[in-house]
Amino acid sequence: MIFNQYYDLVNKSISSFVGSLGESSIYDPIKYFLDLPSKRIRPIATLISNKLFNDNDDFAIHAALANEVFHNFTLIHDDIMDSSAIRRGKDTVHIKWDLNQAILSGDSLLILSYTLLEKYDSEIQKELLKLFNETALLICEGQQLDLDFEQKNDIDYENYLKMIKYKTAVLLASSLKMGGIINNVNSADSEALYECGINIGLAFQIQDDYLDLFGNQDKIGKRVGGDVIENKKTILYHMCKRNSNSEQLELLNHLYNSKEVEAKVEKAKSLFIETKADVNTKDLVKYYSDLAINSIDKIKVDSNLKEDLISLTNLLLERKN
Amino acid sequence: MIFNQYYDLVNKSISSFVGSLGESSIYDPIKYFLDLPSKRIRPIATLISNKLFNDNDDFAIHAALANEVFHNFTLIHDDIMDSSAIRRGKDTVHIKWDLNQAILSGDSLLILSYTLLEKYDSEIQKELLKLFNETALLICEGQQLDLDFEQKNDIDYENYLKMIKYKTAVLLASSLKMGGIINNVNSADSEALYECGINIGLAFQIQDDYLDLFGNQDKIGKRVGGDVIENKKTILYHMCKRNSNSEQLELLNHLYNSKEVEAKVEKAKSLFIETKADVNTKDLVKYYSDLAINSIDKIKVDSNLKEDLISLTNLLLERKN
Repeated sequence: MIFNQYYDLVNKSISSFVGSLGESSIYDPIKYFLDLPSKRIRPIATLISNKLFNDNDDFAIHAALANEVFHNFTLIHDDIMDSSAIRRGKDTVHIKWDLNQAILSGDSLLILSYTLLEKYDSEIQKELLKLFNETALLICEGQQLDLDFEQKNDIDYENYLKMIKYKTAVLLASSLKMGGIINNVNSADSEALYECGINIGLAFQIQDDYLDLFGNQDKIGKRVGGDVIENKKTILYHMCKRNSNSEQLELLNHLYNSKEVEAKVEKAKSLFIETKADVNTKDLVKYYSDLAINSIDKIKVDSNLKEDLISLTNLLLERKN
Repeated sequence: MIFNQYYDLVNKSISSFVGSLGESSIYDPIKYFLDLPSKRIRPIATLISNKLFNDNDDFAIHAALANEVFHNFTLIHDDIMDSSAIRRGKDTVHIKWDLNQAILSGDSLLILSYTLLEKYDSEIQKELLKLFNETALLICEGQQLDLDFEQKNDIDYENYLKMIKYKTAVLLASSLKMGGIINNVNSADSEALYECGINIGLAFQIQDDYLDLFGNQDKIGKRVGGDVIENKKTILYHMCKRNSNSEQLELLNHLYNSKEVEAKVEKAKSLFIETKADVNTKDLVKYYSDLAINSIDKIKVDSNLKEDLISLTNLLLERKN
């Protein structure tokens, strides 16, 4: 990990945050969940963004943790909504405790994320609160799109992109922008940071969809084609649908309604290659990934200061440059 | 209703708040729930408190709504945890929609309560955010005590008081204190408002427990003795337990483990009278009610300005003076 210094600071600060929680049993699931190993991408993004303007990592750690704590709140509640039993290799909160405990501890984790904003001066805090509220609502709206899509079958490509933007990209965008806000940067830099986060987030999620089927099993750490097996209509499905003739469309619909496992994955793979869904998806990753780098170019600081942010982008998007 | 002016302003503002929500279906249950008829005690408390220092009701309406919106968030999630099907005479959100929708719309309602704080200047906002976070966490801790008590049978009197303080009193206290904060009042006035809310809240909840068994069926609008029938260990139970000899204690335990209905209510009533639980409970209402009036006395504004606050206290606590 090239961001050891940030990673260690985040983990140390999370330990101290967890240690500061009260005695109520409401905090037990929170202690358990925040301690599970995680890549800590969002708080690291805030620390990296702060570093563009300020050498003092400690100044940014509260904003960094606010994003991580909020993210963990969404995971606890999403795991209920998705009936997921395992998260980060361990039992989810509603399994290890129960439904009521997961709802209630999730609620208090959301509130706790707001307490972390208290650490900043009033003017900065006002800006942070506004961004945090906007982001939080979009994330909930993204989860709503996900729930809506589960119930109806006619999701279109635009709404799929909107969903991944809300569910994944806006929190990364706000994590980066917060590093600017706490340093009172001008609105152009602040917007560039936000855009950068949106574009990294979109590229990352689209790449994740791609790798699920076309990645290397050892590298992705899960069964190849899991999304196809579960009939999840990810970006590959949408790219295929846009480029299919009537025969291919029929096969696509058949595959996404069939209970086959092994054969289905191979058939979907061939169909996606035939309709260029694979190439078009890779192009889209490159498109957003280039936009992310463009956004970084726009930030008005010395380019040698931008190395960490570029490294983060390359790390998340497996860019070779 | 003696507070028509405040009541109408709150309802008008809630309509306009609801009208400002986005198009996402996440807001449908929120629109439904906020529109149900409600006494609007908490926002009215903020408006009354603001009036002590400021003639402009509109200045306080955002803080007032923040408390009401937060309160409604807790109801939506509590209804899931308590498996309640009816609220304010209508289906609860998890019944009318489903569990996932109630979790997610509840989450976004909590976030929306924070957006209302954005309306104030940064220095005031900072104070409001701190109080709001503290209050919100205590309310969650109160709900946790309630869940804990359902699972173990040995709740003591002190923890029962702590639970009703957290579940009911702190939000009224914070609603009153916010009316002071937005007017930059000194900390003595601000604390007096908070204390006042705590004491009204405790007196109100204890009176509610009392009236459930000793009130007039027409007046309380529900079946007399409902708490006893459901084996709810309210303040009457605790008062009785503290004053029981071994024989009375045995009867008390028997009643709270029995599935009788009619006979049980009458037996509990006699036992509570015999052990003076009834009188002691009424005394406790008077104790907190007097403390509330004392807190009002401490606020350094002309006494004629305090009339609404005293009326609110008397209305909630059915004081005859």
